[in-house]
Amino acid sequence: MASRFYQLVVDSHDPGALAEFWAAVLGQTALYRSGDEVIVGADEHSYPGLCFVLVPGGRVVKNRLHTDLDPDGQEAEVEGERIIGLGARRADVGQGDGVSWVVLADPEGNEFCVLAPHRSLVA
Amino acid sequence: MASRFYQLVVDSHDPGALAEFWAAVLGQTALYRSGDEVIVGADEHSYPGLCFVLVPGGRVVKNRLHTDLDPDGQEAEVEGERIIGLGARRADVGQGDGVSWVVLADPEGNEFCVLAPHRSLVA
Repeated sequence: MASRFYQLVVDSHDPGALAEFWAAVLGQTALYRSGDEVIVGADEHSYPGLCFVLVPGGRVVKNRLHTDLDPDGQEAEVEGERIIGLGARRADVGQGDGVSWVVLADPEGNEFCVLAPHRSLVA
Repeated sequence: MASRFYQLVVDSHDPGALAEFWAAVLGQTALYRSGDEVIVGADEHSYPGLCFVLVPGGRVVKNRLHTDLDPDGQEAEVEGERIIGLGARRADVGQGDGVSWVVLADPEGNEFCVLAPHRSLVA
C-alpha cells in the first residue's frame, strides 16, 4: 500500500499563461484545460504532472517548495536566454556567488533552479 | 533543448524526519544524505526526486505549491490512517464538504491532497 506523486499543484493568477510557460520550459504539453485549471505533462501516464489552478491571493513570501531543473545545457538554457526568453527572470534568494545553479523566477514569481546537468539524482 | 523536472525541493526544519515521512508515504527510500540535505526517490534515475533541505525560518502562509497523491486506495491510505499514522494531520484550506480529495498536512505543515485513485493525469 502506498501513494504515488501524481501532480504538483501550483496556485496561479493566470493558469493558462503559467502552464504555457512551464510546458515550453519542460518540452511538454497541456493535456487538459478547464476554466480554472490546466494540467501539463509529457503524456497522461507520466507522473507527476504540473497542475496550474486559479487561486485568488498573491504570493507574499518565498515559497517553501520549489522545483530544480536538470537542463540539457545550463548555458544554453539560461545564458542563451531560452528560459528567460519564455518569461522567467533572475532571482536572488540569498544564494550568493559561486554556486553551480542559477536561480530564476517564473512569470508569477515562483522561484526555481536550473542546475548544472546531472546524470542521476545522486550524481 | 529542454530541461527536466529533476527534484522538488522542500525547505525543512528537520530534513531527516521529513524525508523519512515522505519516503514511507511514497514507498521510496533515502538515496542520499548529507548534513543538511536528504534526497528521496524510487531510484536514482527516476525523476523527480524529493529533496529536503535545512532552511531556517518557519512557514508563515499556506504554500502556493503542493503535491497531490494518487493512492492505491484513498480509504486505506487515509481512513485506515496509514498516512496519518506516519505523522500527517488533517488540514482545512477551505476545501469545504463533498470534495473527492482529502487534505492533509505533513509533519512540518506542508499541505498535500490524497485524491481518489486515478488511472491517468486526465482521468
